[in-house]
Amino acid sequence: MSVTAPQGFEAAGVAAGLKSTGKADVAVVVNRGPRKVGTAVFTSNRAKANPVIWSQQVVADRTVEAVVLNSGGANCFTGAFGFQTSHLTAEKTAELLEVSAGDVVVCSTGLIGTGDEVFRGKVLAGVEAGIAQLSADGGQAAAEAIMTTDTVAKTVVVRRDGWTIGGMAKGAGMLAPGLATMLVVLTTDADVDAADADAALRRATGVTFDRLDSDGCMSTNDQVTLLANGASGIRPGLDAFAAALTEAADELAKKLQGDAEGASHDITIVVRGAVSEQDAVEVGRSVARNNLFKAAIFGNDPNWGRVLAAIGTTRAVFDPYDTEVWMNGVRVCAEGGPDRPREEVDLTPRATDLVIDLKSGDATATIRTNDLTHEYVHENSAYSS
Amino acid sequence: MSVTAPQGFEAAGVAAGLKSTGKADVAVVVNRGPRKVGTAVFTSNRAKANPVIWSQQVVADRTVEAVVLNSGGANCFTGAFGFQTSHLTAEKTAELLEVSAGDVVVCSTGLIGTGDEVFRGKVLAGVEAGIAQLSADGGQAAAEAIMTTDTVAKTVVVRRDGWTIGGMAKGAGMLAPGLATMLVVLTTDADVDAADADAALRRATGVTFDRLDSDGCMSTNDQVTLLANGASGIRPGLDAFAAALTEAADELAKKLQGDAEGASHDITIVVRGAVSEQDAVEVGRSVARNNLFKAAIFGNDPNWGRVLAAIGTTRAVFDPYDTEVWMNGVRVCAEGGPDRPREEVDLTPRATDLVIDLKSGDATATIRTNDLTHEYVHENSAYSS
Repeated sequence: MSVTAPQGFEAAGVAAGLKSTGKADVAVVVNRGPRKVGTAVFTSNRAKANPVIWSQQVVADRTVEAVVLNSGGANCFTGAFGFQTSHLTAEKTAELLEVSAGDVVVCSTGLIGTGDEVFRGKVLAGVEAGIAQLSADGGQAAAEAIMTTDTVAKTVVVRRDGWTIGGMAKGAGMLAPGLATMLVVLTTDADVDAADADAALRRATGVTFDRLDSDGCMSTNDQVTLLANGASGIRPGLDAFAAALTEAADELAKKLQGDAEGASHDITIVVRGAVSEQDAVEVGRSVARNNLFKAAIFGNDPNWGRVLAAIGTTRAVFDPYDTEVWMNGVRVCAEGGPDRPREEVDLTPRATDLVIDLKSGDATATIRTNDLTHEYVHENSAYSS
Repeated sequence: MSVTAPQGFEAAGVAAGLKSTGKADVAVVVNRGPRKVGTAVFTSNRAKANPVIWSQQVVADRTVEAVVLNSGGANCFTGAFGFQTSHLTAEKTAELLEVSAGDVVVCSTGLIGTGDEVFRGKVLAGVEAGIAQLSADGGQAAAEAIMTTDTVAKTVVVRRDGWTIGGMAKGAGMLAPGLATMLVVLTTDADVDAADADAALRRATGVTFDRLDSDGCMSTNDQVTLLANGASGIRPGLDAFAAALTEAADELAKKLQGDAEGASHDITIVVRGAVSEQDAVEVGRSVARNNLFKAAIFGNDPNWGRVLAAIGTTRAVFDPYDTEVWMNGVRVCAEGGPDRPREEVDLTPRATDLVIDLKSGDATATIRTNDLTHEYVHENSAYSS
């Protein structure tokens, strides 16, 4: 069901010929109202793709009628022509839906530098075909149309008393914070105003997608868009809505982690005992981005020294001689030296738990990452070929 | 010849049983004077190994009589016992050489967490054996004794009119700035005072070892030590000495890059047109640490979009729509879009040249790195087993 699980949303996914495999590659999600609240968060990469630049303008007034997404080309670093393509995509959509082009969000994913006339023609034809196929059952087809190296379509539905949140996500590798590299659309029939929608989206992404750091690489195309139409007639409070939205975002984030390119371990890094949440996040990220640690986990090797070496590169408050490291429940380092024998740690399961106790305060944070594998190198060396 | 190329230095390398292979694993370098000037730069990792903590005290007065180095154990996160081991190593050396323990630098490399009583006993026995074998021809043996995953011993000799600089280095992977992970000893018979030696060492390492970023991972054990004895009787000016020292350091840095674990490409990243050298370095590092770019180079894929995506994560002054990217002499990106076809780029040679022109100023910097390969993952996943 994904984005069409809440009332008042329609979606479609069609094959427009952007993917050489012939699979679906253009998705359309339309909000049928009554309200047309929309907001989004974007990559913090300063090299932004054209659809990001376009969509930042669109969401400024917190009104969104539709989202058009394509896989098979990032339309990034494609010059003025590429920006015009995003603009034309919105105009075509607006014309067919009889809405304003300024209320149509555009998202693209694929190889940077792809966005020529052929690309433009296929996207525009895809928009036309997609809108012709819009339906209240189209959520799954839309989720499939945004896949790139994803091995599964990623969707979520969170139900509350009388209202629902639906969502779809694409992303597999190039996952880094601020945001993780991904395209996500979240929909809800709850009656939330623009301010609450925006606040809830930032709260939810801040502790979910922003803390997913698969390979430290930040994309040029990330967008997470939230559409709200109030079709349920129920108005949850901000806290209740934000909690449900966080649940939906967390579920999608876990699915992104679980499908990261070539990964063989899903690593959950819990940092506790930090002086501040910021310190906890910085420590978690430093470990999540350490290639030596990630390669060790791939090899089922509880090499805790690499954890300490990573923490040492941060500015966080900690005492190297009073920090604890736990791997899958076994305390392997305490008081600046080896604790339990590394042989006690079983790293063969895919789910890997790393706990770091800085013993300096009460703050905590969780960062999700993956291991560094032969397959990761292989997939990313062959990406554009 | 390495560290014994200049007059007045002796060295030795012996097998003390720290390496399971039975190869040499303890090295000693002694300055026979007349002057005993010594200085060093250390890892900026806040999780420092015991020999680093010890040696920082030793060089505070800019006097160093000898350097003892061991491979086969990092003596890091080994608690108070480990610090005492570094102290005892210096005391044993001092006793045999009839000098002060406070003038003996100690360096260790190997697995973090290794440094028990057996380790201590072998190191102390190795010191005794090494000092008994000291000779003016011992430079090569010393260079071999500090190897870990290095495939070749790394040495350098730079000769000037009447004076000489010699050096040895170990390091292969875990190479990152501030410093790159390495143990280096540089010796000279030039007559330089403590202030000039220190200034020259910082100048040389700042543009060589500090700009080598093989895998973004910073070690706990890095040390670069310079010993100067004035035995040549010649006193070069600071600029002349610093230039020769930079030449020696650069040569060793290139050898470290060329021997990085599992690498198949040595990538030289030249950033020009930057507003400041700091901007140029930040941009170069962002690319050097981007796993997606590094995996693409491994696959001989001129995926310049990943270069732009990396630059976009920095704070450097640049216009994404007026930045140029050159790969092995071919301009693949200009004015925010594709330029020459990627097919024109031949990435099959090991030496890979990436030039980034930010077109914003006159500053430039060069960063050296390697590609991300199957072999890198393999070697680092099996490191401790």
